[in-house]
Amino acid sequence: MSYEIEIGRAKRGRRAFSLDDIAIVPSRRTRDPEDVSTKWQIDAFTFDTPVIGAPMDSVMSPATAIALGKLGGLGVLNLEGLWTRYEDVQPVLDEIANLEVDLADAAAETKVTRKLQELYSAPIQAELISARLKEIRDSGVVVAGSLTPQRTQEHYKTVLAAGVDIFVIRGTTVSAEHVSQNQEPLNLKQFIYELDVPVIVGGASGYTPALHLMRTGAAGVLVGFGGGATSTTRRALGINVPTATAISDVAAARRDYLDESGGRYVHVIADGGLGTSGDIVKAIALGADAVMLGTALARADEAPGQGWHWGMEASHESVPRGDRVRIGRVGPMSELLYGPSHHSNGTSNLMGMLRRSMATTGYSELKEFQRVDVLVNDSIGGR
Amino acid sequence: MSYEIEIGRAKRGRRAFSLDDIAIVPSRRTRDPEDVSTKWQIDAFTFDTPVIGAPMDSVMSPATAIALGKLGGLGVLNLEGLWTRYEDVQPVLDEIANLEVDLADAAAETKVTRKLQELYSAPIQAELISARLKEIRDSGVVVAGSLTPQRTQEHYKTVLAAGVDIFVIRGTTVSAEHVSQNQEPLNLKQFIYELDVPVIVGGASGYTPALHLMRTGAAGVLVGFGGGATSTTRRALGINVPTATAISDVAAARRDYLDESGGRYVHVIADGGLGTSGDIVKAIALGADAVMLGTALARADEAPGQGWHWGMEASHESVPRGDRVRIGRVGPMSELLYGPSHHSNGTSNLMGMLRRSMATTGYSELKEFQRVDVLVNDSIGGR
Amino acid sequence: MSYEIEIGRAKRGRRAFSLDDIAIVPSRRTRDPEDVSTKWQIDAFTFDTPVIGAPMDSVMSPATAIALGKLGGLGVLNLEGLWTRYEDVQPVLDEIANLEVDLADAAAETKVTRKLQELYSAPIQAELISARLKEIRDSGVVVAGSLTPQRTQEHYKTVLAAGVDIFVIRGTTVSAEHVSQNQEPLNLKQFIYELDVPVIVGGASGYTPALHLMRTGAAGVLVGFGGGATSTTRRALGINVPTATAISDVAAARRDYLDESGGRYVHVIADGGLGTSGDIVKAIALGADAVMLGTALARADEAPGQGWHWGMEASHESVPRGDRVRIGRVGPMSELLYGPSHHSNGTSNLMGMLRRSMATTGYSELKEFQRVDVLVNDSIGGR
Amino acid sequence: MSYEIEIGRAKRGRRAFSLDDIAIVPSRRTRDPEDVSTKWQIDAFTFDTPVIGAPMDSVMSPATAIALGKLGGLGVLNLEGLWTRYEDVQPVLDEIANLEVDLADAAAETKVTRKLQELYSAPIQAELISARLKEIRDSGVVVAGSLTPQRTQEHYKTVLAAGVDIFVIRGTTVSAEHVSQNQEPLNLKQFIYELDVPVIVGGASGYTPALHLMRTGAAGVLVGFGGGATSTTRRALGINVPTATAISDVAAARRDYLDESGGRYVHVIADGGLGTSGDIVKAIALGADAVMLGTALARADEAPGQGWHWGMEASHESVPRGDRVRIGRVGPMSELLYGPSHHSNGTSNLMGMLRRSMATTGYSELKEFQRVDVLVNDSIGGR
Repeated sequence: MSYEIEIGRAKRGRRAFSLDDIAIVPSRRTRDPEDVSTKWQIDAFTFDTPVIGAPMDSVMSPATAIALGKLGGLGVLNLEGLWTRYEDVQPVLDEIANLEVDLADAAAETKVTRKLQELYSAPIQAELISARLKEIRDSGVVVAGSLTPQRTQEHYKTVLAAGVDIFVIRGTTVSAEHVSQNQEPLNLKQFIYELDVPVIVGGASGYTPALHLMRTGAAGVLVGFGGGATSTTRRALGINVPTATAISDVAAARRDYLDESGGRYVHVIADGGLGTSGDIVKAIALGADAVMLGTALARADEAPGQGWHWGMEASHESVPRGDRVRIGRVGPMSELLYGPSHHSNGTSNLMGMLRRSMATTGYSELKEFQRVDVLVNDSIGGR
Repeated sequence: MSYEIEIGRAKRGRRAFSLDDIAIVPSRRTRDPEDVSTKWQIDAFTFDTPVIGAPMDSVMSPATAIALGKLGGLGVLNLEGLWTRYEDVQPVLDEIANLEVDLADAAAETKVTRKLQELYSAPIQAELISARLKEIRDSGVVVAGSLTPQRTQEHYKTVLAAGVDIFVIRGTTVSAEHVSQNQEPLNLKQFIYELDVPVIVGGASGYTPALHLMRTGAAGVLVGFGGGATSTTRRALGINVPTATAISDVAAARRDYLDESGGRYVHVIADGGLGTSGDIVKAIALGADAVMLGTALARADEAPGQGWHWGMEASHESVPRGDRVRIGRVGPMSELLYGPSHHSNGTSNLMGMLRRSMATTGYSELKEFQRVDVLVNDSIGGR
Repeated sequence: MSYEIEIGRAKRGRRAFSLDDIAIVPSRRTRDPEDVSTKWQIDAFTFDTPVIGAPMDSVMSPATAIALGKLGGLGVLNLEGLWTRYEDVQPVLDEIANLEVDLADAAAETKVTRKLQELYSAPIQAELISARLKEIRDSGVVVAGSLTPQRTQEHYKTVLAAGVDIFVIRGTTVSAEHVSQNQEPLNLKQFIYELDVPVIVGGASGYTPALHLMRTGAAGVLVGFGGGATSTTRRALGINVPTATAISDVAAARRDYLDESGGRYVHVIADGGLGTSGDIVKAIALGADAVMLGTALARADEAPGQGWHWGMEASHESVPRGDRVRIGRVGPMSELLYGPSHHSNGTSNLMGMLRRSMATTGYSELKEFQRVDVLVNDSIGGR
Repeated sequence: MSYEIEIGRAKRGRRAFSLDDIAIVPSRRTRDPEDVSTKWQIDAFTFDTPVIGAPMDSVMSPATAIALGKLGGLGVLNLEGLWTRYEDVQPVLDEIANLEVDLADAAAETKVTRKLQELYSAPIQAELISARLKEIRDSGVVVAGSLTPQRTQEHYKTVLAAGVDIFVIRGTTVSAEHVSQNQEPLNLKQFIYELDVPVIVGGASGYTPALHLMRTGAAGVLVGFGGGATSTTRRALGINVPTATAISDVAAARRDYLDESGGRYVHVIADGGLGTSGDIVKAIALGADAVMLGTALARADEAPGQGWHWGMEASHESVPRGDRVRIGRVGPMSELLYGPSHHSNGTSNLMGMLRRSMATTGYSELKEFQRVDVLVNDSIGGR
């Protein structure tokens, strides 16, 4: 069914495409951007904007999760990050932001990695999980927190007790069938079945893995696996699924599961590597229902990263697979989402750019826009 | 009919090509460059050279439009740009040209965008439209002015009263079917039908959108959508149609419309991203009848941009999608068009290079040259 | 059987792929990294880790060969390198490491080449071969030494007398059928038949050359031909077989020879250009049983190269085809192999990263992991 | 017959390949480099080495043409260059070599172009043609001189009277059918028929143009069209035929013409863009019988360019299409051709590298080596 290439006589592989490889194309109709809706609904929750803040410490604090919620999106707090390891997080964030390295020094990268490993070795405190979630809940926005599959069993009761509206299970790669000889793995299907709140789970990056995750009862599946700006997974693990192909494959799983399940629609959420409005546009064009943003929101003035961005993998104690990346600040979160923009490079007024792109190609609803025509172009110097 | 690639299980897309991806190839015959004609005719107007000056403030002033006309081309004045917003434009141009930014400063790009947004927020003055067009008309050259579709209804009567020979409707993407719930959109077909002067309309970037524009009665269609050197449309909106594919598709629409209409030949004008003589050569080889030049003419000593180049999208109040680009100056406009050249990089003697290229591959007329063989090569380091 | 492209009317060629062109992809299952085994066995020897130290003077000294053996791998000493040409090697290594060149000087590269040519012109001393091998043997680890095919006949008796467990014949390209009018070439088949110890031979880089090498009775075949980080073979000789395709082709030869021979399994050892853990992962995914590492081990604190790396081809007296390359040092060899890593770029904890990658994609044994799915992606900017 | 790609709905084009896109691959046999012959014969002349010095003023002077002849190759003097325009050439060469430009200055490139245009505007003197050719003849080597088709009629009698063994007609693109309304074009077929000496003619870059040139009676056809290191033809004229495809196409024309003519073998000479030994290897692998070298010989200590290299197109009075390129010096011409090399980058011992490459892949004669297997790889970062 898919296009396979002979790599050598004993191996074939599909050609996969990154977002930079594709572009959307105009149709015979154009629309008024004013007429475009970006509304998105998952389970009982409706959002004005299909933006989910990535549970990364450089992006989402309780405060920015609240701010994003008030702006019509959904903020997800990482419940295994700095906010649940430290009572007072600001000094830790400052230390990361102010860690100076001499780029001419070959050991610079190591210095940052060692510092992140050290800072993230502090233990997770259950009472901080409760406190952080309460802070978000008190603001009145939809509450969402994330755990990795490895720590879900240990902490989920704390999380549920503190009260979340949406539960996120997020790891580099999460499968419906985790095998271990040492410890009883999380049975996702049973876990989700017994839970009262909707679960978003991932990353998944292929048709089959995603289909199996959908069968666990998840309300949404994250597409990605640490493929964002901060990740070195590709170099360190040799694993990569270019985002355009990954989203389209998971969208196909959604379609097939919809049929198989007799009508259950599992939301596909693109997660990782969406740095500009153009990337967001393409993710939806390829079949995403919503986007989880890291880099793009880490550029907000309010973002805890203070112009820096890093992921959970960067602090792994033995197999670190990520860097602290300088991304700068481009304006307040409200301007990043809704403008007006004073940046020409797709980093600001993300939703305004999305509306304009949909209008320019003749679409007024996100779901319809998934049908827009795309083309494959060179990633270099294409005009 | 077209070559489709599977991007993922739920999406396919065509492979599209930029001008850098292609090259023209010699045939078994060569010709004397002296025997080559670059004559071009649209409606009742005949031009020695198939060059149209892009309605961009860094390229076309009333003075350069006149100069281009006298040199055998066609200058188009942007009737929504600085010349119709300011009585005295020179200080504004100087301000843009002299705006110094520290490239090491991350906020530099914003500073330019904010300044352009501010300068272009001055209101358009109807009397200036009349005055600028009169100045061109008085010189005796063919008069052409452009409006965006959004402002055509507001200003077209002023334009017609002032007198234009060719009316240009130009936007990032212009369709024959614009839908809006808030305001009655311009009915292009009716508008063109009722107008006494020939209309050139675009940008269009695909077979179907172009075919629909041809059916409105336009005399020419612009191929492009802000894909030139100054544009960030691709990054900000995710929209891109590489130029080589776009021109060839619209040329196919011209051919099919010629049949469908029983013989009406709509001119295809490549617009955007034609920075060198090689680009112009390829645009015509791919089916363009003429070329609208921005960057290539902005390098003229007389160009109002004074070595800088920017497009209308760069000053959009909420979704700016363009940069001020440094392009330098390479000589007087006459030398840029007809030489002799003292530059080896294809920025000077554009028509001499076109003649030589046509002669080298054995062609003597532009229309025949559209049949020249092309090949697809790597855009990088190809020898 | 393979995918051929028309280069021109008189020539066709296969499309070949480098490791950067491919990536491995998750499946529907994940595993606990603790459950993963990296055990590897060749002939009577079992190793905890499928890592072979490349017989290059910047990588393997008697001391580092011993260290690698104690860490569960196999070190191979180059028996034509500095250790068998000099009694006291350290001053020579220091001279190479401290040779300063002004990179702005166009003649810098020549200066290094001349120095290497000079240093490697010292004669090989049979007694040093014996002494170096004895030193390794005395440590109790598996002993392996390498000769080029050109010098095998001259020195192999010395080598065997000194005692090796595994004999390596390694050259840029080694074929089973070397033709010479001037001297009787080494008859590999007869040589291996008569030898008591298992032989690893290569580089080979295609299905047919590898199949013929397998028929000589070799226990293992090296895939590669001087295609590593230090090599300029591609530029100087125009020869190149991208590693991904080469490994897969030779794996196909192993499979076919297994059938043809009625069950003799010849090990495929990827050799050259494996600089990161991601590369090692991919080599095995494409069919390699083990990896011979140059660059990756030359980064060890103990490596004789002291942060520099060079190959045998670099010192060829008349056709030098390699450079001294700066690769830096990232930690002790034990950390490079087993972590914990403080580097995010895949240069440390190579086996930990391999385990994680196998676990993430659902595999627990190296042999099974050769079946993992791979895809083809752009080598540039892919997300 | 060839692989065509749809560029757009109205245009198709072949995929073409540059030398960087391909590589040669080992076979099951290797040989002793000592057994390799690089002998080449055209008409009555036999050469030890298939190297022809390009008629460019930075490469071939009467002195270097003689030196190359004595070293077993063939030097061709440009009879329209500095040596036939100036009695005393050295001051002119010095002026070009010493022309300093500030690379930070945008007008730098123009300054060089203007100087070349000025220097090459001096008239060609018939008596200097005679004198330069006599100098070469007196040395006893094979004498060859080149004219462009435009000037052949004016000067060929002078050339013949002075005495040449091989007559070269070389232009950017030379066809068998040049059409002009202003002047009677050179009738190549008649001209060659009437001439007593063998003619090498080109550049040609496709099957059909080359086949027509072969039918004129030429002894050899040059493949290329100013596609070398100094040329900007691609950017300025939009014309490009990547070298690998061009050579293979012309080799197919040679094969078909051999059949059509009942056995006349026309030599295919790759001309342009062969900068390293690897390039030479690939050119022959793709079907070339010999190579015309510019850059590669301009690096000789004796080369008139003194570390600089430029082509005839760079000085064209109105459409200059080339640059003065800094290439440096790597050693005496004898070392460049036959070594020993102290450079690892393929710029020295060109014939030694060719022999080694042929031996490594199992070939001993140039003609057989045209059958070696090649593959297509990425031009970027391929390992």
